[in-house]
Amino acid sequence: MQQQDKDITLDLEKIRQDIDTVDEQIQNLLNRRAKLAEAVAKTKFAQEENPVFYRPEREAQVLRKVMERNQGPLSDQTIARLFREIMSACLALEAPQSIAFLGPQGTFTQAAVIKHFGQDAVMRPITTIDEVFREVESGSAHYGVVPVENSSEGVVNHTLDCFRASHLHVIGEVELPIHHQFLISANTRKDSIKQIYAHQQALAQCRQWLDAHYPGVERVPLSSNAEAARRIRNEWHSAAIAGDVAAQFYDLEILHANIEDNPANTTRFLVIGREKSSRSGHDKTSLLISAHDRAGALMEILAPFAKHQITLTSIETRPALPEKWAYVFFIDLKGHVDDENVANALNEIRPHVKELRVLGSYPIAVL
Amino acid sequence: MQQQDKDITLDLEKIRQDIDTVDEQIQNLLNRRAKLAEAVAKTKFAQEENPVFYRPEREAQVLRKVMERNQGPLSDQTIARLFREIMSACLALEAPQSIAFLGPQGTFTQAAVIKHFGQDAVMRPITTIDEVFREVESGSAHYGVVPVENSSEGVVNHTLDCFRASHLHVIGEVELPIHHQFLISANTRKDSIKQIYAHQQALAQCRQWLDAHYPGVERVPLSSNAEAARRIRNEWHSAAIAGDVAAQFYDLEILHANIEDNPANTTRFLVIGREKSSRSGHDKTSLLISAHDRAGALMEILAPFAKHQITLTSIETRPALPEKWAYVFFIDLKGHVDDENVANALNEIRPHVKELRVLGSYPIAVL
Repeated sequence: MQQQDKDITLDLEKIRQDIDTVDEQIQNLLNRRAKLAEAVAKTKFAQEENPVFYRPEREAQVLRKVMERNQGPLSDQTIARLFREIMSACLALEAPQSIAFLGPQGTFTQAAVIKHFGQDAVMRPITTIDEVFREVESGSAHYGVVPVENSSEGVVNHTLDCFRASHLHVIGEVELPIHHQFLISANTRKDSIKQIYAHQQALAQCRQWLDAHYPGVERVPLSSNAEAARRIRNEWHSAAIAGDVAAQFYDLEILHANIEDNPANTTRFLVIGREKSSRSGHDKTSLLISAHDRAGALMEILAPFAKHQITLTSIETRPALPEKWAYVFFIDLKGHVDDENVANALNEIRPHVKELRVLGSYPIAVL
Repeated sequence: MQQQDKDITLDLEKIRQDIDTVDEQIQNLLNRRAKLAEAVAKTKFAQEENPVFYRPEREAQVLRKVMERNQGPLSDQTIARLFREIMSACLALEAPQSIAFLGPQGTFTQAAVIKHFGQDAVMRPITTIDEVFREVESGSAHYGVVPVENSSEGVVNHTLDCFRASHLHVIGEVELPIHHQFLISANTRKDSIKQIYAHQQALAQCRQWLDAHYPGVERVPLSSNAEAARRIRNEWHSAAIAGDVAAQFYDLEILHANIEDNPANTTRFLVIGREKSSRSGHDKTSLLISAHDRAGALMEILAPFAKHQITLTSIETRPALPEKWAYVFFIDLKGHVDDENVANALNEIRPHVKELRVLGSYPIAVL
């Protein structure tokens, strides 16, 4: 037994030596990759005065290739995440990229920035969505990241409104999972919960769980989950559904964690920049269309997409500004504006609408 | 010119092919490393029934080796960060590690968890520091991360108090940079700022900046920076110093960003676990000492450290619990309890104090 133990220990020592050898090889290759990235930077500077270093379509292609050829044991997701960090480190060496995002630090939007740009990006938290746009427009930041759909208010209308007044391009999207918590205050009598407060959307996203665990208890929709959390502080008969941040801020107890029916529930962010993204092969396009105020206006827009077999992934209507537009639609579709069928569909739609703007074509979120 | 452009483009194509080749090699090595990590796991399971997979001293050694042999162009910091992510991914494959931390998600403590354990750790936000300790004690989480020093209240006494009642070990430390923001409300008249509110420590940490930019303006110490932020909302003559989170929560404007005098200002976290960490070669030790209530008690504690040439990095005094202790000191020193000089010093101190507990010896933060 003593002997066997010793063998195994020796074995462990041997494996660790192998790991050290592999680590050294990985390190050499990482630095070799960084040197090649520097060579790319030099070549680009020789070609152009203001070269663009971050190429979302190329990054998406690299990540997809990595995932396709992956044999494990590391999962496709894990290996892609490691490569995003490696590319981020190399890009920071070529030219550090500064990213303006809706602050403060430590929010979901920052998590989205890290997921998309890696930890080597220079993070610049900004107080409002408008200012994120202005920072990127003025060149103070290379790129911006703004929420476009979230759990508590659905589409972030303010972001869509900013696109109306801006000529920035959407160059990427980021998706993050979200969770809902069932919260009570120190005053709550757990056995006497008579009302459950939350934003309508959160109530909907937890409906099955609520049916199973709190059947017959009144569900009260409020303006936001944060308002729900605030309100239960001094009540003994109510509970709220909200996120971790609200729970912490209002000092509430998480009675049940992650109660959302669909664990794949995500919140979505857009990456904005001054240059367009080229085709990556798996792209999405965001459009802003202002239609005429007449019957069948939406049909005239949708028919060409169907005809050219284009998949729409989202359509949102915004109240028009008084004199300018009758309706404004924000439409996301699968494909790139440089794809023939997308180009054809847009050409057919254009004569029938007041304005059609391509907000951007960009790689579908890889991770 | 046309020709030259073409050459350069070809060149860029060639470099990109080289990058693809390097990427494939890196990917193969990453998966080879993961396989070796799996072999380590199998060997450990053959040896013990409940093997420990996370070895902080080994991880610190790997990171230091990586930094020492690094030739660039990637910086030592960057390459170490990439290796931490690689090790985290491999460790998650051996046995996913769950980390309890003071929530909510998106706080600085979570940033510390990610910095120390990488993104592949299973994050478990917990509402109070006590509960983080309990989660680790009960085995519900493998490790815990708790703040021990922060900018707004100095040492986090609550964490120190938890150590009194716990037999967990400190197995690591994490340091994060912190920033102070100069905040005003929508009501503030920028030219008429008469008071600047903040916690005493934040005022001290921004003293030079305040002297230069707001000489002669009254500085009012409050119980916390959050309280300072809250108070200025309805005032027109005041400003506050606080972090990004408070700025966002109270909808305040960041008039001047990152005004701390020392940009290397950090906040510190401790990693707690059930097993001790072995020597890594560059270690720190945290002690809890309850002294007798008599003159010269502190001298009796400090003299042996000086005699054995041990560097103290921190010493904190806590009010004793009524009947149990007279004074309680929390002391951090450089060295490991298995180092001869540290062991000797502790043996000399022990007879002179009521209690001496080694909270843990752990690798000095590498990054």
